[in-house]
Amino acid sequence: MRRNSQADRPIGVFDSGMGGLTVVRSIKRYLPYEDLIYFGDTARLPYGTKSKEVITRFAFQDAEFLISRGVKLLIVACHSVSSIALEDLKKGFDIPILGVIEPGAKAVVKATRNRKIGVIGTYATISSGAYERAIKRFRRDVEIIAKPTPLFVPLVEEGWIDNEITYQTALFYLSPLREDGIDTLLLGCTHYPLIKGVLQRVMGEGVKIVDASDETALEAREILKERHILQKERRAYYKFYLSDLVPNFAKIGERFLGSPMDEVIRASIPE
Amino acid sequence: MRRNSQADRPIGVFDSGMGGLTVVRSIKRYLPYEDLIYFGDTARLPYGTKSKEVITRFAFQDAEFLISRGVKLLIVACHSVSSIALEDLKKGFDIPILGVIEPGAKAVVKATRNRKIGVIGTYATISSGAYERAIKRFRRDVEIIAKPTPLFVPLVEEGWIDNEITYQTALFYLSPLREDGIDTLLLGCTHYPLIKGVLQRVMGEGVKIVDASDETALEAREILKERHILQKERRAYYKFYLSDLVPNFAKIGERFLGSPMDEVIRASIPE
Repeated sequence: MRRNSQADRPIGVFDSGMGGLTVVRSIKRYLPYEDLIYFGDTARLPYGTKSKEVITRFAFQDAEFLISRGVKLLIVACHSVSSIALEDLKKGFDIPILGVIEPGAKAVVKATRNRKIGVIGTYATISSGAYERAIKRFRRDVEIIAKPTPLFVPLVEEGWIDNEITYQTALFYLSPLREDGIDTLLLGCTHYPLIKGVLQRVMGEGVKIVDASDETALEAREILKERHILQKERRAYYKFYLSDLVPNFAKIGERFLGSPMDEVIRASIPE
Repeated sequence: MRRNSQADRPIGVFDSGMGGLTVVRSIKRYLPYEDLIYFGDTARLPYGTKSKEVITRFAFQDAEFLISRGVKLLIVACHSVSSIALEDLKKGFDIPILGVIEPGAKAVVKATRNRKIGVIGTYATISSGAYERAIKRFRRDVEIIAKPTPLFVPLVEEGWIDNEITYQTALFYLSPLREDGIDTLLLGCTHYPLIKGVLQRVMGEGVKIVDASDETALEAREILKERHILQKERRAYYKFYLSDLVPNFAKIGERFLGSPMDEVIRASIPE
């Protein structure tokens, strides 16, 4: 009873590890009827500390893995890959490919009142300048303060979601942004939504925090609507591939996803 | 003018990344005339979060890389590999192979007075139980308190060698060990020697801190002496291979090594 075979195909999401499950969590919220295949390259994470060349090579392998499984839309949940290799990926494959940079950039431009925007992420994401470029494409007369905050990733992975050390670390990293008077802060890393509470506490209630995961899911919905391949009212099926079943992967996965991962498969990536 | 071609061959040292350069630093101190080849698998670090199967596979590839370059002694500077794959490596190759676990274990047994020993490391190292087993082989009537302290690695990599957040994190992790009254603390991770000052401050001067890097270099000297392949009074040559030239590799390398890396080469590892 296939009415629309393209619509029936799953969304593909990949990331360097399990952080991208925060994007899946947002997709679940905004696109509840879509099937989804996830690939997390847990054997080779993190990407954020690697060179442009290696990140691009890994990104093509990850994309190939999902595209060969027939996805209708590919979402690059990894900020490092989205910063560095998205244009190459778009040229390399002929299905719609969505990164996490542009949706977040669009949203902060909409959110800011005083046109002072903060962006935080890993060293690779921030030093790529991809967020600055994307934000400036939407609006030129904004001031952007971009800062690498790399310790947030291991803090989240250690489960220190709301403790004093995480608060102190956030205070150390974010004080300059607070002093600069930004009114909007973009979370440019998959892990950061989990410590949104701490970040909000440090920045104060006057600062709007924009989560790139939510914005990416909303953008994905627009793309599927435009192409008339949005699914409606059915039970969605999720499949999670990881390149290594790391210790505690189920527990870590659930922390990011907000619910247990149903079907997890270990997958080797051909190099 | 080769008098002893075996002695002329270099020592090989490998690690998941650049942390193993703390072992090279100790080798420089205790074996100043030895040539050395280093391989750091920066493209695939960290190993500590990966499964036993993947760590073992990577370890064999890394060992193969150095052994094919004619090393006379192979030192596994990575604690995760030493914990998990050392016996397999020893079976797989016919040159002397030295890990970082046993030298550290031997030294803490010698150092302790009250027979209460603390061991800290990554999740993989601690949960492998390798340190407990190694220590118990040297002496059975000791109490061992082993604790994973994974945030020390990113803190060192962020360069937060002696700041308040590192101190607070150490206080959080180490307070139980201090309360248990250990008199000896073994640093079971390549990165930890860099924050030895903070750790000493948290533990108090009464606690002896044993650095596995130093002990490994001293053990290597014993092995070379026994086999009559120790070099004497010559200028040593160092070569550093990295599987990825990560951003700031020169700066990070110098931090671990204590001096600049002379010759750095990017090397692909055949999978």
